[in-house]
Amino acid sequence: MKLSPRQEEIVCIVKENAPITSEALAEKIGVTRAALRADLAVLTMIGALDARPKVGYVYSGKTSNGLVYQQISKIKVSEIMSKPVTVSEDTMVYDAIVFLFLNDVGTLFIENNGIMTGAVSRKDFLKISIGGTDIHKVPVGVIMTRMPNIICASEDDNAYDLAKKIIEHEIDSIPVVEILKKSDGKDQMKIIGKVSKTNITKLFVKLGEIEN
Amino acid sequence: MKLSPRQEEIVCIVKENAPITSEALAEKIGVTRAALRADLAVLTMIGALDARPKVGYVYSGKTSNGLVYQQISKIKVSEIMSKPVTVSEDTMVYDAIVFLFLNDVGTLFIENNGIMTGAVSRKDFLKISIGGTDIHKVPVGVIMTRMPNIICASEDDNAYDLAKKIIEHEIDSIPVVEILKKSDGKDQMKIIGKVSKTNITKLFVKLGEIEN
Repeated sequence: MKLSPRQEEIVCIVKENAPITSEALAEKIGVTRAALRADLAVLTMIGALDARPKVGYVYSGKTSNGLVYQQISKIKVSEIMSKPVTVSEDTMVYDAIVFLFLNDVGTLFIENNGIMTGAVSRKDFLKISIGGTDIHKVPVGVIMTRMPNIICASEDDNAYDLAKKIIEHEIDSIPVVEILKKSDGKDQMKIIGKVSKTNITKLFVKLGEIEN
Repeated sequence: MKLSPRQEEIVCIVKENAPITSEALAEKIGVTRAALRADLAVLTMIGALDARPKVGYVYSGKTSNGLVYQQISKIKVSEIMSKPVTVSEDTMVYDAIVFLFLNDVGTLFIENNGIMTGAVSRKDFLKISIGGTDIHKVPVGVIMTRMPNIICASEDDNAYDLAKKIIEHEIDSIPVVEILKKSDGKDQMKIIGKVSKTNITKLFVKLGEIEN
């Protein structure tokens, strides 16, 4: 978002003189306090300035992306996740690949008695398929990435943090899990959803939609 | 973004009474015009209201996502695209897959004398690899999706429209092309970049970043 010249001027003055009251600001710029009200409202709303009661305005150091972040950071994983597609560890790789195509997903999650034990991506499947292995005879449990080496998220996490994890760890899809506490102290994960780059791209498209 | 109760009230009144001047609005709410200035500035800025000179405020019918859209729609494809990875049509499928892994991408684009002729995705490669075909003996030209059946974008398109295409057409990656006009009227495409769901997810993360 582009600031107006007046708004840029306000940010400059606040940067140098913080904390500064709106009276002092108005005086420096040479206008009435009322004339500044709209600009100050916009600048605090987008997060460029912080208004501290009885102190004055300070520069927040945030860019104009503040407002986008504000909007994005309220979105929960539960709002954008989709249904996970799961198979059991003893499914043969070939059958798992067919299942992957039938469900048109990029990652299969592996479950054992309702507990998530691993994940296999399209990339993993491609790797094993070109290696001369008889994929009819190898179960997915042999090639999967096994827990706890899988980045997980919870329903209440925010979508933005999850997108960051996807980029930082260079993964396609993150399982959304519920943690089941066990008596021996070892936590187990029950998979309840997944969020992939597709979900994030859809969210991005939805965010920019203008309803008519 | 959440509107304040006062802002909600303003939107409601404008919806019912548009076009309405700020004087009339102030009177209806029972405050001074100056007291409304900040809220009106915010509401027009986020696109909820339109201010028409000498007419008054009208309801734009847009949601509060307007501001996010405004920010997003300025981003050009050229700002987020990455380098395309290309092979020639006669590359054997096996070699192309190895190349795919070495470059850590999800789609290879096929070039012939500098002209883009097709694309092959990880999904296409996986399909051919499990089918019992000798992938050492089949060139990618046989399995690729061929032009003009490929959705393309240009550098100057905006990133938001491209993200929409990715979702609408259910594709992973879109080539960014320059159109070379040919004398026989047939356009040819030179590939200069690509944008995948990864690029969109990265953009999403970048948008929400708050610099310190």
